[in-house]
This record gives sequence, C-alpha cells and structure tokens, in this order.
Amino acid sequence: MRENTPRSSALPVAPARGRLRPLGLDEVRITGGFWARRRRINATATLGHCRDWMERVGWIGNFRAAVEGRIQRDRRGREFADSDVYKLLEAMAWEAGPGAPAPWDTEIAALTEAIAPAQEPDGYLNTAFGRPGQLPRYSDLAWGHELYCYGHLIQAGVAQARTRGEGELTKIARRAADHVCATFGRGGIEGVCGHPEIETALVELARATGEQRYLDQATLFVDRRGHGTLPDMEFGRAYYQDDLPVRDAEVLRGHAVRALYLAAGAVDVAVETGDDALLAAVVRQWEATVARRTHLTGGMGSHHRDESFGDDFVLPPDRAYSETCAGVASVMLAWRLLLATGEPRFADLAERTLFNVVATSPSEDGRAFFYSNTLHRRRRGTVPPADTDSPRAESSLRAPWFAVSCCPTNVARTLALLPAYLATADDHGIQLHQYADTEISTSLAGGHAVELRVGTDYPSGGSVTVRIDRTPDHPWTLTLRVPAWAEGAAARLVDADGTHRAVAPGTATVTRVFRPGDRIRLDLPVAPRWLEPDPRVDAVRGTVAVQRGPVVYCAESVDLPDGHEVDAVRVDPSTEPQDGPDDTVVVPGELAALGEPRDAAWPYRPLSPAPAPTAERTGIVLVPYHSWANRGPSTMRVWLPRTL
Amino acid sequence: MRENTPRSSALPVAPARGRLRPLGLDEVRITGGFWARRRRINATATLGHCRDWMERVGWIGNFRAAVEGRIQRDRRGREFADSDVYKLLEAMAWEAGPGAPAPWDTEIAALTEAIAPAQEPDGYLNTAFGRPGQLPRYSDLAWGHELYCYGHLIQAGVAQARTRGEGELTKIARRAADHVCATFGRGGIEGVCGHPEIETALVELARATGEQRYLDQATLFVDRRGHGTLPDMEFGRAYYQDDLPVRDAEVLRGHAVRALYLAAGAVDVAVETGDDALLAAVVRQWEATVARRTHLTGGMGSHHRDESFGDDFVLPPDRAYSETCAGVASVMLAWRLLLATGEPRFADLAERTLFNVVATSPSEDGRAFFYSNTLHRRRRGTVPPADTDSPRAESSLRAPWFAVSCCPTNVARTLALLPAYLATADDHGIQLHQYADTEISTSLAGGHAVELRVGTDYPSGGSVTVRIDRTPDHPWTLTLRVPAWAEGAAARLVDADGTHRAVAPGTATVTRVFRPGDRIRLDLPVAPRWLEPDPRVDAVRGTVAVQRGPVVYCAESVDLPDGHEVDAVRVDPSTEPQDGPDDTVVVPGELAALGEPRDAAWPYRPLSPAPAPTAERTGIVLVPYHSWANRGPSTMRVWLPRTL
Repeated sequence: MRENTPRSSALPVAPARGRLRPLGLDEVRITGGFWARRRRINATATLGHCRDWMERVGWIGNFRAAVEGRIQRDRRGREFADSDVYKLLEAMAWEAGPGAPAPWDTEIAALTEAIAPAQEPDGYLNTAFGRPGQLPRYSDLAWGHELYCYGHLIQAGVAQARTRGEGELTKIARRAADHVCATFGRGGIEGVCGHPEIETALVELARATGEQRYLDQATLFVDRRGHGTLPDMEFGRAYYQDDLPVRDAEVLRGHAVRALYLAAGAVDVAVETGDDALLAAVVRQWEATVARRTHLTGGMGSHHRDESFGDDFVLPPDRAYSETCAGVASVMLAWRLLLATGEPRFADLAERTLFNVVATSPSEDGRAFFYSNTLHRRRRGTVPPADTDSPRAESSLRAPWFAVSCCPTNVARTLALLPAYLATADDHGIQLHQYADTEISTSLAGGHAVELRVGTDYPSGGSVTVRIDRTPDHPWTLTLRVPAWAEGAAARLVDADGTHRAVAPGTATVTRVFRPGDRIRLDLPVAPRWLEPDPRVDAVRGTVAVQRGPVVYCAESVDLPDGHEVDAVRVDPSTEPQDGPDDTVVVPGELAALGEPRDAAWPYRPLSPAPAPTAERTGIVLVPYHSWANRGPSTMRVWLPRTL
Repeated sequence: MRENTPRSSALPVAPARGRLRPLGLDEVRITGGFWARRRRINATATLGHCRDWMERVGWIGNFRAAVEGRIQRDRRGREFADSDVYKLLEAMAWEAGPGAPAPWDTEIAALTEAIAPAQEPDGYLNTAFGRPGQLPRYSDLAWGHELYCYGHLIQAGVAQARTRGEGELTKIARRAADHVCATFGRGGIEGVCGHPEIETALVELARATGEQRYLDQATLFVDRRGHGTLPDMEFGRAYYQDDLPVRDAEVLRGHAVRALYLAAGAVDVAVETGDDALLAAVVRQWEATVARRTHLTGGMGSHHRDESFGDDFVLPPDRAYSETCAGVASVMLAWRLLLATGEPRFADLAERTLFNVVATSPSEDGRAFFYSNTLHRRRRGTVPPADTDSPRAESSLRAPWFAVSCCPTNVARTLALLPAYLATADDHGIQLHQYADTEISTSLAGGHAVELRVGTDYPSGGSVTVRIDRTPDHPWTLTLRVPAWAEGAAARLVDADGTHRAVAPGTATVTRVFRPGDRIRLDLPVAPRWLEPDPRVDAVRGTVAVQRGPVVYCAESVDLPDGHEVDAVRVDPSTEPQDGPDDTVVVPGELAALGEPRDAAWPYRPLSPAPAPTAERTGIVLVPYHSWANRGPSTMRVWLPRTL
C-alpha cells in the first residue's frame, strides 16, 4: 500500500497508507437532499434527546456519583453505560465540526466537566468497577466492558482533537490510553476485552497523536485475541471472537457488533503496520460474510439469543436481528476497506447499509429508534411508552430509549460524521462513492485546488451532476462509483462535452482537462426492480423483493385496503414494478383470502394440487423500508410470496 | 364431566372425573416393539447414566453439603439442580412399578436418604436458598425455582405412593406440600413461581392423598397467575405466563415448557373442581397453539433466546428450538385433555410428539440427548466430549449431560411411565390410543374382567391386531383410535367375524359380545406420503416433507452420495415416496449443483427466468427423523425444497 497522508484533519479515519485518501468534514459538505434532512434532525433533535435521556436514566450522573463516593449505591444502567456518554460526545464533536466555535462546544465542555473528576490518577476511568463496594478493576474482562468503554472515550477524544483541536476530552482519552498501555502492554495483563472496540480507537489515537505505543497496543490486542484468554461459555468463545486468531478466520462469526468492530480494528492495524496478510484475512472474511450472512438490507446478525451471525444462509426475515449498531459497524469496516483497497464493492455495501439499516433505525422525528431491524413484522405492535426505556432490542415500534441503548448514540455519531464517508482523493483525482447534494473542496497532488458541486435527488432520482467550480489546468480524473445494484440496467455517463457512454457497475472515470463550469452527469436507472434470493436462503424461498436504486422496499399494512395484514399479499413478478407517487412503488398482486388462522386444525396437510387462485388482482403499494413504522402500529414484510 | 374413579393406583394422572378412566402400570404392559426397545434402554442405561452424572457434577452432593453446613461453598449446578434429582427419583419409581420389591427400590432408598436430612423442620427443602450465606427463602420467586423444585419432588413422592405405597419420599413430599400451603395459602405470600410445575403436582398429591388443601393451593396458584405478581423483564411477563390469567388467554405463549406445565396444571384443577370454563380455556389455547405454533414433529418453541413460542407461524426449521422438555410437557397436557374430553385429537398430537420429539432426544444407547430438536442442521457438528457437560441446549450432536440438564431426566420419567399413556376404559369398554405390543388387563363396570393382547409392528407396519383373552359374556365396546395422519388413506377395521369396513380418522368401534380368542384388526396405511405446509409458515414455503404413519422423515447427509450435504437435495413430489429397506423411504429427486458458497458475491440477484435444471435425477434416501445423528456428524433436513 502506498503512503497517503490525508490533507484534512477532520476525519474519523486517517490512515497513513492506502489506495485512497479520505476527505474530511472541512472538505465535504452535504447541502441538501435525503442525508441533509437526516443530519438536520440528528443535530436538532437526536443529540439533545440522547443527552436528556442519559441525564434522566442516570448514566451521566454515574460520573458524579463516582466522584462523590456514592457510586456503589447510586450507579444506574448496565456495566457499559459510560460508553454511551462517550459516543454522544463523539457525535457532538463531529457535529460541531472543524473551524470556528460551535454551539455544541458548550455541551461538550459540560459533559467533559462531569466526566473528568471521575478519572483516577493513573488514568483508570470507569464507573462500574474499582471503587469500594464494586468489583475490582479488570476482574471480569469477558463482560465488564472496561476496555470497550475506553475505546469509545478515545474515539470521542480523537473527534475533539480532529475538529476543535486537542482539548480536555482528548487529554482524558490520552491518559486512559496510556493507562491501558501500561496495564495491558507486554508484561502486563495478558488479556483482551470481551467486546472489541478499543483496537480501532487506539489506532486512530496513534494516527492523531503520532504516538507509536497506541498502535503497538492495538496490534497486541488484535494478535492476542483468538487464543482463548476469555472464558468458554454458553455461546462459545466465538461469541467474542476468541475462538480463532483474526488472521486464521474464514468468516465473521459470533456477536455481530463485536465481530465487525474487531475487523475494523484489524484493518486499521494492518494498514498502519503494512500487514498485507492481515488485511487479506479481513477481506476474505468480509467476502464470505456478505455472500452468505447478510440480509438484503445490508443488516447483519440472525440470532436474537446472542445477537450473533448465524450459520451460512440462516437469514430469516421474521427473526432478523440486524442490530442497528451492527449496521454502523459494517459501514465503519467497509469504509476502512475502501480506503485501503479502493474497491467499489465496499462502498456498495456501505450504501446499502446506510439507506436500509442506519436510516431505518431513527423515527422521522429523530426521537425514537429501532435497536433490531426486522425484515418481517407479523403482528401489529404497540407504541412503546414515551417516558420509559424499553427492554433491550424488543420494541415492536421504535422506542425512545433502551435499557441497553447503544444504538441511538451510534446512529447519532454516524450521521454527524457522514460527510467524511462520501468522497476520497488520490494522486490522480477525486472519487465520489456516495451520492448526495454536496460541495467538495480539496487539493490534488502539488496542492492544486479543486472544487466540485454535486447535485442530485438521489436516491429518489438517479441523475447525479458534478459541476467543476475550480480546477487546475492540467488533466485529472473524476471517478464515480456505478453501484452494483445497477447490474444489467442502462447506466450512462455524460461527459462535459455532451458525449455519453454506457457504464457498468464498478467505477466510471472521466480524465480530462476540466474547465470551471464543466458538468459531468451520471445517469443511474433507479427504476424499481424485482430481486430473488439464492436458493440456499431457505427462509425466503418462493418470494421476491423490490429494490429501487439502493433502497429496499416493503409492504406495510397501512397501505393495504380493508384492514388486510401483509401476510395476505401475493405478488406477480412477471410484470415490472412501477413507480408510484411520493417514492412509493406499485406492483401487481393479489390479497389472498387466507381465512382465519384457526381454519385448519394443523398447519400441515397432504400435498394436493394447487387450488385455482380466487383472489382478485390488485396493485400493491410498497414503501421504502427505511420509512416503515412511522404511521402507527402495522405489519410489514420485505420478501413477498409470489402468486401461484 | 362424569365421576370416573380409576381402578388402578399405578397412575401418573388419576382424575376424579373425566370422559375416560386411565389404565395404570398394573393394567397395561408393553411387551415388544419400538417402545419396548426404548424402555429397555431407558431402564438399563439412561437411569444409571443420569444418576452417575448427577453424582459427578455434584447435584446429589448438594443435599449432603447442605446438611454438613458447607453448601454456600460447595453448591454445584443451577438454582434448579435439585429438581433433576427428583425427576430421576420419579423415573425410578415408575420403572420399579407396582407390586413386588424391585431392583430400583435400593436406588430410591439411597437417594431419599441423601435428600431427607436436608429438609428443614418446617418442611422447607431447597439447596440453593435459605441457609447462611445464601439468599433468603422465596426472595426470588421469578428465577429461584423453589416451588418448581417442590413440584418435581411431589411428583416423585406421588410416583412412590402409587407404585410402592407411601414411603419416605412420599413423606418428604407431603411435608414440603404442607409447608407450601402454609406459606403460600390465603394470608401467606401472594406469589407464584417463575416456573409453573407445582400446580399439576399439588393436584396429583391431592388425588393421591385425598387432601383437599393441596387442590385448593393448586387452584390458588392457577388463579393467581396472570396478575403481574412477577416482575416485568426483558422478555416480558408472558415469558412466565404472568401477563394474562389462564382463563383469559387465547394461545400458549412465552417459555414453552412453562406454558405447557401451567396448562397441564390448569386442566387438573379444572377437572377436580368441575370448572368447565377453565377447561374450555385451555382447550382453546391448545387448538390455537397446534394450528399455528407447532412444528411438524409436534415440537413446540421457536425461539432460542427465551426458549419460547414465537408469533403465529414463526416455525423456522433451522432455528426450531423444540425443546425435549416441551415435548414431554405437551404429551402431559394432551393426556390430561384426552382423559377429560375423550377426543382423539389429543392422542394424535401425543403420538406425533412421542415418536418425533421424545424418541428423538436420546441416542440409540440412551446415554446422550438432544435438548433442542432442530428440524434442519446446516453444518456437520462435532461430537460433544463424553466427559464434560454441554452448555445449555447447544450440543450439535447429542450430549451426555448439560449445564441445564432437565431433558434427560424428563425423557427418562416419560419412558418409564409410558404404558400408562396407551389405553383407557369407560363404562362401555376399552379405548386404545397408542399402538404397541401390549397386554391389557382391567375390569369393566360391575367388575367384569377383560384381558386383551395387542400385536403390531407399528409404526413400521400399520396392522394392529387385538386378541380378546378374557371377556364378560355381555356386549361391550372396543374403541381404536384412527390417527389423523391417515386422513384420505384407506384405513379399515376387520371385525372378529372377518367382516371389514372402511374407517376414517377419529375413532373406530366394535360393540359386540366378544369371545376369548376373538381378533379385531385395524389396518392403517403407513405408506409414506408427501406433506405440504400452510402458506403462512413462511420459513418452509416451496418445500415438502415426508411422513410415514406417525413418523416424520428427514434427509441426512450420511445417506447422500459423494459427500453431498443435505442442502443440495431437491425432491420431485409428483411421484409418491416409496418404502426402502430398514424403515427408510426413497423419494425421486436430484442433487443440485449449487457450487461453492462463495460463487456469488451476494446472495440476492435480479429476478431471472429459472434456468433449466442440469442435475441428474436420483433416488434420495430418507430416514426416520428420530434416528438422525446416530451415525456421526451430519447435516439433516426435514423440509425438502421441490425441484423447479
């Protein structure tokens, strides 16, 4: 991998090497469209919502209780509650962004002031362990989450350093990281955390500070895992990826968020240390995971029991776990792999996951969330009460807060840093990976400034126009991702001179001497299309789904006539789906008269020739999956049985 | 319901009322065939295996440790470990049977001697609570299982009373029951146990002793549940059926074993108190559960996470939980409903569950068990080590013992008492519900002795001959169940005079003056047949299964050529399945060339016309589901995709 020092500092991921150079929050600005709306709600509703809830449920108060010596009595929340305060701080820092003082600075300062006194002189910081009446420090590495919490603290500290300059939060994070190196370095505790996360954080801190020891410690943690230092237990050591060394595994397995955070950290270590074998191992695992263990939405995780990947092709829509945090983590991993390799397939999965998992979790008002993102809801749920937190993962509709509330703050930090996931540069030019109304301003090799403006109503429309506002007067290359979902459809690229050509999934490039005012247009065919599953995905045999551009669609009962539920829907995929109004899609189908559930004594019967269908044909309205459950209790399904 | 006092005392369930009168272990003897083999292995291998394991893992030792004041330090196993010692005792008592001293008496005496001193003067008995250094008695009704353990103790005590006469074990059980009445009766603790079980046990103790207070206490427990006395938690109060009163519920829900034990207890209470509304409520719940929440095997429970029923029609074969104990509990419930109502549908489900869940759990040698009975195994598992217990439920092949080892002892007690589940009597005659080689000896109204001998090789063959060996010289009625699985097939009854007639599922009766030597024959068509699922069982759309008589079949990789795994199997149900040698079945099909799992980057693709199948046609060998996983690691599936 080549050296590739980023120009921007306002970056969540700033590798020293890689095929592509990331562009930071000072280089890419989202100005309108789908993600601008989501980011505005995040900034104006979600961040404050998370802060208010964490005050209310006492997770911020835990730090005060620790300082005031009453933590044993007063601690609230699970053992990892500290981490959500840190994720919120990270989100606020990215939202504040680089440059001039921002409204969020006051919030950050107030939270930092609450946390700081709880840090002990040697850098240890955790409200659940180590004080009188609590379990000793590091007495439960498997479940204690102490290193996991540091990971999120460090990511928050890095976000502050990268946006506002090193501040108090960064200093707290560095002291914690130094403590971790002293305690878990060579000669120290020979252990790893039950929940990976610190690995990627330490590498980023090394990148931000230039301190080699943080990278060394991250490398040690990655290498140490998989050797059985964590205890065996009901779900097996695969749950926390301690069954096999990272470089020996063939597929992601166990708890999905743990697996994905670890893989992200392993990529970071591989990139910084030039360890191509380690990078190749993660790429291999990613390939197998995407080919066999990923839902159509990009969601990962099949098991509710242990929040884990299932066996290959175990992807039941009605029991999909597809945790929001696994979606966030999958985007983190994909972004790192994209920077390292330049391969558009990683941006393809990131796009799918952003539109269908990350965008699905929050409600329209940004004040309620899905923890688990099912692909099939069989009975109308009840709206969780607005004033109490929900049992983990189990809200039937989006809930305001959870007993384990990792997802809201994870969505918040992802939306806050989203502009940094859209575009990159290299010596030859600029690469656009995700499409939104954006302004991009960076410099190419030799310091030549480039400014672009991207205009699109993607994903509603498929036309993406890039206007060159500033350019050197020598040739360079503009690269646009042609999404994999456009396979077989007629995508085309219109050059500045009006000539056009067909382009296939992968990347389309224009190399030329650009002039200010030049326009390049990519026309992507977002017409809705039928998809079918691999026959090995048993749970959806005999069904089809609809995707429109990157957006997965679903049937929702509120759009069906006469109080029908979605399980009555049968669709006829011999006719193409059609666009309806307001981003809906209409497909030909029928509403089967299935009768009451109790019309048979037993749901299995001797095989008989299929009866002639009696149901009347009708148009079935589908809506974007990310928009479901915003209109009250409903039933929903993504995979639709075919008419006989 | 009519009064119906049983003649035998050797009965697991002896209702004072009901449509049918159970026949006891002194009235029905299994002499050969499928169940005789299973019962022999149970008696000669499983009972000793369970005793040895409970010595080894310290669960029997817990009682000694309690007496010797070292329980806080030395206690082993989960909070409910005592209950498995009691279930083993119950199994031994049924195995010892009525009449003369039996080899198991010594074992029972030795275990009773270990337990007795641990009972406290007021009758309290539990090794997990109440002693110095332990949590106080009844401080955790939700999870402590104290009343659940009494339930199994009482069932063991009743088994002793019913087979050997009241002994020390019975006395311990009565003291415990008296303590429960004193502690949880009116004016006492207003609570219920997180795990139902004591309800059915107390009713049986009332029946065995004639003591009304045990019935009153059981009634109180049934009525008290569903009013939210247990705490809300992650899975909701439905997990322990505390969400709704028993008489208000529409379907079984929550933890499957809990739900089924509670339903059994509610039937017992309804029968003893003449509460027809309560009985009707349970029948209604059973109907809805069988129609929508039951696997083809009779297995119940879809969720691994909370061992619970899922939503209607959530019956994924590859994530079927179908706990062995839920199968045992379902048979217990069905038997109680059959006695109360006389309706053969309850015997139908019991038969299905016995052959396909209860018979599936133990290995051929009776020394390893399935806890969960999946209907689809996707990768070859590893053989669990013979010398360590397995994490709960998670053995990939049968395991010798589990950290939570409720299933082995539950199978053991069920096989031991199985003869008592086969036949009943009423004023008009004898009813045969389950077919096996048996000798039946009882008396009809007026004390007239009847002796029958049933000869059959069921379920391999479908011919059941009943020879009358002793009979009064006035007319009476012999009733034979015609299983629901024979729907649409040509079943017939051959009378003693050689005349025959077609019979349909339900019951077939012969009323006549029998003579010794008369033979009645029921010919059931056990030829293998294709079954298809209700379209609402999404997880098995597009597949078929094979059943032969009551036995569900499966494809197992060890029977496929060239190292194929079962996921390559496609079957053509346009041709009937054929009998193969040794109880196998052969179906036409093909082995799809699916390629390597990684041949596609992504398991979803634009819909395209189905490619012409290229695989060669071949015969696919199927084996009885209960026999799978006895030939080393394999993959297996019950529901088989159809050829295109």
